Amino acid sequence: MSNRVLSMNLATTSGAWGFAEAVDSCLRHGIPAISPWRDQVEAIGIKEAVRIVAAHRLQVRGLCRGGRFPSGTAAARQEALEHNGAAIDEAAALHADCLVLVVGGLPGSSKDIAEARKMVAEGIAAMLPHARASGVPLAIEPLHPMYAADRACVNTLDQALDLCETLGEGVGVAIDVYHVWWDPRLREAVARAGRLKRILAHHICDWLVPTRDLLLDRGMMGDGVIDLRAIREMIESAGYFGPQEVEIFSRDNWWKRPGDEVVKTVVERVNAVC
Amino acid sequence: MSNRVLSMNLATTSGAWGFAEAVDSCLRHGIPAISPWRDQVEAIGIKEAVRIVAAHRLQVRGLCRGGRFPSGTAAARQEALEHNGAAIDEAAALHADCLVLVVGGLPGSSKDIAEARKMVAEGIAAMLPHARASGVPLAIEPLHPMYAADRACVNTLDQALDLCETLGEGVGVAIDVYHVWWDPRLREAVARAGRLKRILAHHICDWLVPTRDLLLDRGMMGDGVIDLRAIREMIESAGYFGPQEVEIFSRDNWWKRPGDEVVKTVVERVNAVC
Repeated sequence: MSNRVLSMNLATTSGAWGFAEAVDSCLRHGIPAISPWRDQVEAIGIKEAVRIVAAHRLQVRGLCRGGRFPSGTAAARQEALEHNGAAIDEAAALHADCLVLVVGGLPGSSKDIAEARKMVAEGIAAMLPHARASGVPLAIEPLHPMYAADRACVNTLDQALDLCETLGEGVGVAIDVYHVWWDPRLREAVARAGRLKRILAHHICDWLVPTRDLLLDRGMMGDGVIDLRAIREMIESAGYFGPQEVEIFSRDNWWKRPGDEVVKTVVERVNAVC
Repeated sequence: MSNRVLSMNLATTSGAWGFAEAVDSCLRHGIPAISPWRDQVEAIGIKEAVRIVAAHRLQVRGLCRGGRFPSGTAAARQEALEHNGAAIDEAAALHADCLVLVVGGLPGSSKDIAEARKMVAEGIAAMLPHARASGVPLAIEPLHPMYAADRACVNTLDQALDLCETLGEGVGVAIDVYHVWWDPRLREAVARAGRLKRILAHHICDWLVPTRDLLLDRGMMGDGVIDLRAIREMIESAGYFGPQEVEIFSRDNWWKRPGDEVVKTVVERVNAVC
C-alpha cells in the first residue's frame, strides 16, 4: 500500500511536544503538512513558526482555531471579533489553507440553541470580509452533538453547509470523521459538500467503545468503530483529494506516550486502515 | 402553576427502589403513570407487577425495553426475536401503552453502520406481527449520536420516522429530550411525527454541563441546558398531550439519594421548569 499524503494536527503530539519538536518528527516520518494550534504558535512565537514553515516548505493545512461566537453581551462579541481577526492574520502569516472554526455553544446560562446558532451565522459574517481580504478561507467544523452545549452548536455537516450557502464565498467545512461518522445522512451530505466545492479539510481518528471521556478519549485509527476507508471514499467521490489530517485528543493514552511512537503509529495505521 | 400529568420511568428511582416501593412513592406524590424496566418486573414477578398495576389503576406508559436487533449470526437474531416476543407478552400483560425499543448498535467487530441499520429495520419487521396481534405499539427511541456504536444506531427523530413510514402501522417514536434537544431539525421533525400520528412517549431529564459520563450522568430538569418548555410546546403543537415521563440515569447523584427526595424533586421541577 502506498504512503498516503498525511497532515499532522499538532494536537495529536501535544502530550509530548510543542511546535518545533512536532515538526521535526513529522519531517523524519515523511509527513509534509501540519495544522498547529494557536497556543502552540504563541509559545514559539509567530516569527519563528513562520520561519520553520518556510525553511521546510511545510504545508500548513489549517490553523486551529477561531470561533466561539455566541455571547450574551455586545462587548464579548466585539472581543471575539478581535480575537478572530488576530487568528486570520496569524493564518495568513503561516500561509494556512484555512482557519478552522469551532463555533461555540450556548452563551452564559442560555438554553436557546436557535439563538446561539443565529449568533454563529452573524459572527462568521462579521469576520468574513477580513478573511476574504486576507485570502484565508474559513472552515466551519461541525462538532458531534455531544458538544452542542459547550463547544459548538453546529452539529451536522448539512447544518454547516446551510451556513456556507447563506454566507457565500470564503467559507467551507472541515469534515472530521469523529464528529460525523454516525450521521444517517452522511453520504448525501458529503456529496453535497463536494457539489458546493466546500470541503477544506478531512480529519481522522477513531471512536472508541467504550468512550470514557466526552472530550479527551479519541482513538487511534483502527482502534475504534469508524469505517475510515468508507468515509475517505465518500470524500474522494465528492472530489476532495487533500491530505487526511490526524487529530487525536487522548489524555490517558496517546498523550502519555513518546511523541515519536505516536507519529510512527499514525503513519502505520493510516497505511493499514484508512 | 398546575400539576402537570407525569409519568415516572422507574429507572429514575432505581438507585433506591424496586418496582413496588417506587409505585408507592409515585402514588404518594400524585403520579398516576409509570414505565418499568423488564429487570424490575422480573425481580417482583410479572403476576405481582400486574396485580399492583391493577390495584392502583396505574397507567403503564411503556415497558423498557425491547430491541438489540443487529447481530452477526442467525442464531443471535433468533434469540433476539424470542427475547422481544417475551417483552411484547409482558407489555401486553401490563396493559402498557407501548414497548420501548432501544435498537442496538454495531454487532461484534462490525464497522458497517448502514448494515446495522438494515438489521434494525428487519428486526422490527420480524417482531411487528406479534406486536400488532398483541395490541402493543412499538416505540422506536432514537438515541443520542454518542450511543450510535454501542446502544442504538437510530440517532435522529427523522431517521426513526423514516423507519416508521417503511414499517407501517403499529410503530411509533419515543421522543426523549436528552437524545434530540441538539438537533437543528428538531422542530420540523417533531411536527412531522405529529402529522404521522407517531408520537408514543415524551421523556424528559436535562443535559448537564459538563457531562461526566456518557451514560449515567443525566441531569434533573432545570439543572442543565435543555429548553424543556420549548420542546414540550413543540410536541403539544404536534398534537401530543400525553404525560411527560421523567427518565434520569444518574449514578453519582440522584441514584444515591433517598427515593422520596428524588420523586419530590421531580414533581417540583416539572411544575417549575417543564
